[in-house]
Amino acid sequence: MMDHSLTIGAMMERAENFFPKKEVISQTHDKIHRLTYKEIGKRTRSLMSALDKLGIQRGDRVGTLAWNTHRHLEIYFAAPGMGAVLHTINIRLSPEHIIYIINHAEDKIIFVDEDIFPLINQLHEHFTTVKTFVVMTDKDTLPETTLTNVYSYEDLIRDGDETYEFLEDIDERDPAGMCYTSATTGKPKGVMYTHRSIALHSYALGLADSAAVSESDVAMPVVPQFHVNAWGIPFACTWFGSTQVMPGPRFTPERLARFIEEYKVTITAGVPTIWLGLLKEIETNNYDLASLRGVLCGGSAAPIGMIRAFEQKHHIPFFHAYGATETTPLATFSRLKSYQADLSMDEKIQERTRQGILAPGLEMKVVDENGDIPWDNETMGELLLRGPWIANEYYNDDRTEKSFVNGWFHTGDVVTVDEEGTIKIIDRTSDLIKSGGEWISSVELENVLMAHEAVFEACVVAIPDEKWQERPIACVVLHDGYDGKVTKEELLDFLKPQFANFWIPDDVIFVEEIPKSSVGKFLKRELRKIVLTFMEQ
Amino acid sequence: MMDHSLTIGAMMERAENFFPKKEVISQTHDKIHRLTYKEIGKRTRSLMSALDKLGIQRGDRVGTLAWNTHRHLEIYFAAPGMGAVLHTINIRLSPEHIIYIINHAEDKIIFVDEDIFPLINQLHEHFTTVKTFVVMTDKDTLPETTLTNVYSYEDLIRDGDETYEFLEDIDERDPAGMCYTSATTGKPKGVMYTHRSIALHSYALGLADSAAVSESDVAMPVVPQFHVNAWGIPFACTWFGSTQVMPGPRFTPERLARFIEEYKVTITAGVPTIWLGLLKEIETNNYDLASLRGVLCGGSAAPIGMIRAFEQKHHIPFFHAYGATETTPLATFSRLKSYQADLSMDEKIQERTRQGILAPGLEMKVVDENGDIPWDNETMGELLLRGPWIANEYYNDDRTEKSFVNGWFHTGDVVTVDEEGTIKIIDRTSDLIKSGGEWISSVELENVLMAHEAVFEACVVAIPDEKWQERPIACVVLHDGYDGKVTKEELLDFLKPQFANFWIPDDVIFVEEIPKSSVGKFLKRELRKIVLTFMEQ
Repeated sequence: MMDHSLTIGAMMERAENFFPKKEVISQTHDKIHRLTYKEIGKRTRSLMSALDKLGIQRGDRVGTLAWNTHRHLEIYFAAPGMGAVLHTINIRLSPEHIIYIINHAEDKIIFVDEDIFPLINQLHEHFTTVKTFVVMTDKDTLPETTLTNVYSYEDLIRDGDETYEFLEDIDERDPAGMCYTSATTGKPKGVMYTHRSIALHSYALGLADSAAVSESDVAMPVVPQFHVNAWGIPFACTWFGSTQVMPGPRFTPERLARFIEEYKVTITAGVPTIWLGLLKEIETNNYDLASLRGVLCGGSAAPIGMIRAFEQKHHIPFFHAYGATETTPLATFSRLKSYQADLSMDEKIQERTRQGILAPGLEMKVVDENGDIPWDNETMGELLLRGPWIANEYYNDDRTEKSFVNGWFHTGDVVTVDEEGTIKIIDRTSDLIKSGGEWISSVELENVLMAHEAVFEACVVAIPDEKWQERPIACVVLHDGYDGKVTKEELLDFLKPQFANFWIPDDVIFVEEIPKSSVGKFLKRELRKIVLTFMEQ
Repeated sequence: MMDHSLTIGAMMERAENFFPKKEVISQTHDKIHRLTYKEIGKRTRSLMSALDKLGIQRGDRVGTLAWNTHRHLEIYFAAPGMGAVLHTINIRLSPEHIIYIINHAEDKIIFVDEDIFPLINQLHEHFTTVKTFVVMTDKDTLPETTLTNVYSYEDLIRDGDETYEFLEDIDERDPAGMCYTSATTGKPKGVMYTHRSIALHSYALGLADSAAVSESDVAMPVVPQFHVNAWGIPFACTWFGSTQVMPGPRFTPERLARFIEEYKVTITAGVPTIWLGLLKEIETNNYDLASLRGVLCGGSAAPIGMIRAFEQKHHIPFFHAYGATETTPLATFSRLKSYQADLSMDEKIQERTRQGILAPGLEMKVVDENGDIPWDNETMGELLLRGPWIANEYYNDDRTEKSFVNGWFHTGDVVTVDEEGTIKIIDRTSDLIKSGGEWISSVELENVLMAHEAVFEACVVAIPDEKWQERPIACVVLHDGYDGKVTKEELLDFLKPQFANFWIPDDVIFVEEIPKSSVGKFLKRELRKIVLTFMEQ
């Protein structure tokens, strides 16, 4: 067989050749752009020629601080397409972390959206390797700055060579992209993707039993492009010729619902927080969402009440998936098996709370201190993964050896496995609560609490306990209008039928909001501090 | 990223882990077997241990002369699973060719179906490397033979170790399988597949826009397992957990129709000759074929009348695909694009006569003597392919350099390309007819002839002509009952509105049958001899 590499450049070329009329619809600060893949292809080539002229060389890191737009999509293909490495930077990180990862990745150039540029103006003196900045703006003039070496994105495109060729001489194991984990503690850790990992991951997204990304899709990735390649959706959609809808900067639930209706979006993807917001919006205002064939949900476990609302009330298929920055990210995908068609609606909804089975191409082990756990839907163990789109290290980071052991990535996620081989995320190894020598899952308690009609969000944390070592405390945000209408006793009574006695939290604290990480995950460490302060009062 | 290889063993392990209850339904000589993937997995492992005990080493070729059955499926995984190379032998080849390829491939062991064993008894003295024979039989005793070193398949399974491990230390570029082209002239040419080519090809078969092979499928590969891995369907179906229906030895159209009805087959695949037979059967007898979501057709171009019958009369979606032994084989797949939904039924049927667009991961060029041809749906050129599941050589064969030039496989197929990028196979470079300096496509003429209600099969060949260099002659097999009811003039008149004058054949000869190759392709060279003899009379 030919030793032929799968490359990201060839993925864009496929869109240019076979889907030249299909469109990318993109919301920027000022307006909506509609560009065909023929145009996107030419602009990507122009951008490659501009990067070349600006001195970007093979292997150089190309940073982005940007929202989901067509320009960000063009950089997705232009950077790896000319041999450089796309480095998407999470704009929600703290300034120190942003400085840290730009310097750690040794970015040579930064592409930045107009409204994020002020941050760069503030921070740039701390950057050690960045030589050039490009502002992604619709306007004819650049925003005010004391910086030199600042270019306008559209000027670069205009002056570029739209016939510039994708680099052919690429090994599929060459680096193509990188992304840093949004760690809740310590410095972010970098993960390097390759052309191979992104192409194989795209195949996985196109499989009929996974997301089934298709030419006939109108896909709206709500998950940010700065967060694990927007779960790889822009790559897969371009390769397979789907229409893409990019929701742009600072989108609202209203914009998402409106875009779904207006552009007949068939598939969309994001974290549970996004879908809670969307649900609120579509239950307040009227939208026609009949085009949607699937909502993909990942990042953290979706509460059953939300799944039920999508599936039963709005008849929108809801697909749970699981992954991490280290897994490109798709690792498991939830779909009922054909012989589960006869399950009752309640059983189906229960199945949909699980994160599904492993993508073809990956391998998994679930282990506790005694080795492989039985697939009995009860025993908990840590999920280990390996495969061609699983990282084998953190980039230049001595924390590598903690997470990558004997060829397996230790996810830090605790799961159960049922006899169908589907996993259910129970907790983070670090968030399990150990009470009287037994494990309690904070996530299990949270999911049941969030199924209570009064509860908008719930987060359970451990507090130190002299007798039991640790005990759970629940923090609850109520839905609008429920303030004062539900007691902590009612919520605890709601939990009791479903858990062993020792699982029931010692207290419920009503809070205004749960502190969250930049990607919407609960910051349990922060919350624990708040709880401890509260209890000392 | 982990440098993790995609291997065929891991594909079977996925079926064992995630689809243990799903079944393979297999017709052998004596009965129907139903085995779960759990059982198939154990039997595959037992077979690996048996191969090991029989002295089969890494890289050794394991030959099969067998029909589509569960046993053949087990060998598909056991041979590459323990590091050996699966060599499927076309049972329809001439004895000399069978001897040639067994010796050329240096097969160490031959698995042979019971009813093919007599052939082995005849030929074995000519085999230079084969040490062991295994007869695949349901019976307790072996058929009569003077051979020593003959084993019963089920004895090997019974005595094997069902916990034997798939070899882990495999590079995905290691050889996994091989198949010889059924060349109409000269000696067969061998193509070596790798774990990588088969795994990537399986991804391509699972894509929503390709065959979309899924857990929910009941797949019946009619294309023989000895013919380019049954187009890779057994590999993809096992990996993705589909139910498989193996039609076994010497199947008839009646068996195929009955199996589709009985096992609720959702997808099936084969060459046009098979589907002509099936059409005849379902138009004579009554079957419920409502489960079928698709008939895949490849090997040679399907006539429009047949496509129309499936799509319009029987409401069975018909998918044209294109490939070759050298391409593992899937290269292109035909599916309408989403924006073609508004085409009229006639336009859709026309589209379905095309072989579709290139699978993601492959690259193509279409060239004539002036270089790349325009994608104008008119200009003809030879199709060149490259990619990770395209061969780069013939196995130990000095004909390699004719077909593999500058990194491209020259398919020898002449195509047009339309603006959508879909190809249409016009002819073999060697079967085009050159008349008065202009090309005439024999296949185009055949397709239109076969759309005439009286015509069952039509084959157009070139005969030498003093004035025009070559001229076309049509050979026609009529449908039952049309004998004497249609004249050659009527058929020529039927062609005239659709072609330039010089394309119209000089004569029509009615024949009883068209000589065909072992895989159902017209043997034009043979037919030409018959025509010339006929014309001399």
